[in-house]
Amino acid sequence: MTIKKKPLILITNDDGINAKGIEELTISLKGLGEIVVFAPDGPRSGSSCAITSMEPIRCKLVDKKENLTLYKCTGTPADCIKLAINEILENRPDLVVAGINHGGNMSISVQYSGTMGAAAEGCVLGIPSVGISLMDCDENADFNESGRLGCELVQWILKEGLPHGTYLNLNIPVGKKIKGIKVCRQADGRWTNEYKVSKDAHDETVYWLSGNFKNNQPIHPDNDTLALDNGYASLVPCKIDVTDYVFLETLKQMI
Amino acid sequence: MTIKKKPLILITNDDGINAKGIEELTISLKGLGEIVVFAPDGPRSGSSCAITSMEPIRCKLVDKKENLTLYKCTGTPADCIKLAINEILENRPDLVVAGINHGGNMSISVQYSGTMGAAAEGCVLGIPSVGISLMDCDENADFNESGRLGCELVQWILKEGLPHGTYLNLNIPVGKKIKGIKVCRQADGRWTNEYKVSKDAHDETVYWLSGNFKNNQPIHPDNDTLALDNGYASLVPCKIDVTDYVFLETLKQMI
Repeated sequence: MTIKKKPLILITNDDGINAKGIEELTISLKGLGEIVVFAPDGPRSGSSCAITSMEPIRCKLVDKKENLTLYKCTGTPADCIKLAINEILENRPDLVVAGINHGGNMSISVQYSGTMGAAAEGCVLGIPSVGISLMDCDENADFNESGRLGCELVQWILKEGLPHGTYLNLNIPVGKKIKGIKVCRQADGRWTNEYKVSKDAHDETVYWLSGNFKNNQPIHPDNDTLALDNGYASLVPCKIDVTDYVFLETLKQMI
Repeated sequence: MTIKKKPLILITNDDGINAKGIEELTISLKGLGEIVVFAPDGPRSGSSCAITSMEPIRCKLVDKKENLTLYKCTGTPADCIKLAINEILENRPDLVVAGINHGGNMSISVQYSGTMGAAAEGCVLGIPSVGISLMDCDENADFNESGRLGCELVQWILKEGLPHGTYLNLNIPVGKKIKGIKVCRQADGRWTNEYKVSKDAHDETVYWLSGNFKNNQPIHPDNDTLALDNGYASLVPCKIDVTDYVFLETLKQMI
């Protein structure tokens, strides 16, 4: 009989190491294996898959107890995953989990989210990876249902694995009891009216990112936005390879 | 007879407004229409599709002459596209062109590149968009061939358009005479040995992004990396929708 090694789970986020979401995620997953939290030292919302290429990154061990080690670093969420796996961790993680994000990352938000950028980076490095987001930006949001569903999904991934080049995007609506997890596609949408224009102390114009989400095809049955509107958590499998294979064949004939 | 309006071309990059690559791109495209350059005020390499959500963005008119207006801003390349289209330009551009990047953005680099993040953002906002990169990081690189091929491709896009949700990634190898443009897929690769570890002035450890590219399937005939190795410029059509539709169907049966 072989004794099965406990899985090593690497956790990060884009709200920073002190956010409630990453703490609640860590608590939810603590029974599943050895956990390393390696997160930015402050908020990095909207980091996408940005990497720090022109400045050095610093990292610091924050705490180490049984089955739980915490590091913070000066980089982006994607930097956290790269640095942890390349330089800090002794063993390769079995899983990368990013979140729980304060705010939803459905539809086009997958493009901008630092949390999803970290999940993508885990996938690039060949590790099953998932990002988890709650549709509530409040710093004291209730992560109970998100933690429960995230833990269920993590157990499923640890058992089943994920295909090469595919990572998962789990979004959870606000509510006491979620109807379940629905497998979805990324809804086709974008942001509009994106800036609040104001003046600084010297009366110079400044632009603050803001905006309203616009769904281009709101009623498509597989949309993540529709599942969330109907009280389900949405689960979108995402690909690292962004090639448009359909248009590639057309383009070959044209160019 | 209707008089056809000159196309409005919005140009940005991630090397900043003072880079040679964006200047050469502007010169190459100047005969094709009215040009607005709206670029970061300094280098933003590795910005991906990051957006500035926690600080205000400032922007400044740098110069205005016939058919050419230049702005710089404190944001990322994706911010440049958002801000220009939402707040600064009077008319919607007919095309977004990002580049010419100092350094290639083939294979997995599309994930991290601020230049490609800007092209993606143009596409999200519904405008035909392309990123152009030369495989030479030198600040004085020779952009002659890149400018010529970029101009050819831009004319083609202005005539033919692009499908909703698809943008283009053009990479040009170093050389006096390129064999032509080859339509490709994004090669399946990643970076390894990603950090150079050193000490700062206070003897504290710092990590500098570095690394070697590893191609997972180097001989796939459609790889952009293979075309570039063989002296062709590579053109990859990229999708905003990252849903893995094949695994989505499998996942529906499993969850």
